[in-house]
Amino acid sequence: MNLALLFDEDFVTPDRAVLTGRRLAHLHSVLKVAAGDRIPVGRVDGLMGSGEVIRLTDTEAELQVTLDQQPPTALPLTLILAMPRPKMFRRVLQTCASLGIKDIWLINSYKVEKSFWQTPWLSEDNLRENLALGLEQAKDTVMPTIHIRKLFKPFVEDELPGILAGKRALVAHPGTPTPCPVHLDEPAVLCIGPEGGLTPYEVGKLEEAGCQGVHLGPRILRVETAVPVLVSRLFDACR
Amino acid sequence: MNLALLFDEDFVTPDRAVLTGRRLAHLHSVLKVAAGDRIPVGRVDGLMGSGEVIRLTDTEAELQVTLDQQPPTALPLTLILAMPRPKMFRRVLQTCASLGIKDIWLINSYKVEKSFWQTPWLSEDNLRENLALGLEQAKDTVMPTIHIRKLFKPFVEDELPGILAGKRALVAHPGTPTPCPVHLDEPAVLCIGPEGGLTPYEVGKLEEAGCQGVHLGPRILRVETAVPVLVSRLFDACR
Repeated sequence: MNLALLFDEDFVTPDRAVLTGRRLAHLHSVLKVAAGDRIPVGRVDGLMGSGEVIRLTDTEAELQVTLDQQPPTALPLTLILAMPRPKMFRRVLQTCASLGIKDIWLINSYKVEKSFWQTPWLSEDNLRENLALGLEQAKDTVMPTIHIRKLFKPFVEDELPGILAGKRALVAHPGTPTPCPVHLDEPAVLCIGPEGGLTPYEVGKLEEAGCQGVHLGPRILRVETAVPVLVSRLFDACR
Repeated sequence: MNLALLFDEDFVTPDRAVLTGRRLAHLHSVLKVAAGDRIPVGRVDGLMGSGEVIRLTDTEAELQVTLDQQPPTALPLTLILAMPRPKMFRRVLQTCASLGIKDIWLINSYKVEKSFWQTPWLSEDNLRENLALGLEQAKDTVMPTIHIRKLFKPFVEDELPGILAGKRALVAHPGTPTPCPVHLDEPAVLCIGPEGGLTPYEVGKLEEAGCQGVHLGPRILRVETAVPVLVSRLFDACR
């Protein structure tokens, strides 16, 4: 937690917030703060700044909050991701949030097992919690939006063309002849398949909708590694 | 497991290998192979090719092995990494191996907790197993070398200058003014600090030894995300 993310419900007055639970535990056990200390904070979907600890107990920390800095630039990227295995899903969410991806579509694919969609990590609260962990890691405040689409064909035929309009659209697919481009200066849409890959039919449908197949070289990477590798290749992280 | 990695001890004749344990379980439960099927294989530190399943039981799979392809190009990178928290360490090892990093130095740093060095994941067998998982993911055969250095100062003063000689040397450090370079065409050494960062003293010592401090932008990334982001920025994954 490099920044404590503050939600509307944490604010008791316009410039005072009360932390409990995970964030409070972090203040006690990792940051080992005392009254009078300042910690980096940010308001969800708002500004960042600092919070002075004005009251600290075992159950609550009250912060006097000053918010005066813009969060870091978001990536101009829409990520379309075959629903990952639950074990990996939380980490992928946190990674996406920490990288500055703000628009994430979780879609079905032949090799997405039906059980993946049953994971409790897809509940609204759990999504928000894991995205918050990624934002707190990266010092960002802007909550990504997650869209869940459990049917591949209607998504690709009816929704995807609208999502792609005016954007560079790519589908990462090992074995295609075109290497993934570098350093785009335009908004992009990136599709990443599941463990085991997209089927030829699925790649065909994505290409029909306007996505260009691109590869990342001979190595097959796990989704949680492929996402940072692709993002770092497509956009300049140092902006 | 996109490739079954074969060790010397798996070979019963020069072109026949017997799989048991984890790799056998994968053949049964994920690949669902039958006798006569071919699977991608590679010999540790050797060539890749295919193995025809010539005998399959609950306890063994015997493969007739043909090895005729070079493994993918290694990254010309030496990674010097503050020993990560055990929970994260296995994944970092697998990620490094899957990315093609072949030379990894695990070093101490002020914010590396003493207990991190006690993890069973540092045993020779466990290191080899997790590196093998990364190689099998990426379809590579060349086992990375791990060096363990539990004392920061002697390492940086006595060994690091030799490691850096003739190479571009970088230390990733948020807050330094220089952005991380892109697309190097020379061998490089990259130092990455622990969760919580390197101390100013440590950054100073690394700079004294010849490392240039570079940053990755305003976002603070976890080590497991920073490694692929940095590697993808420094080298072209599509080679």
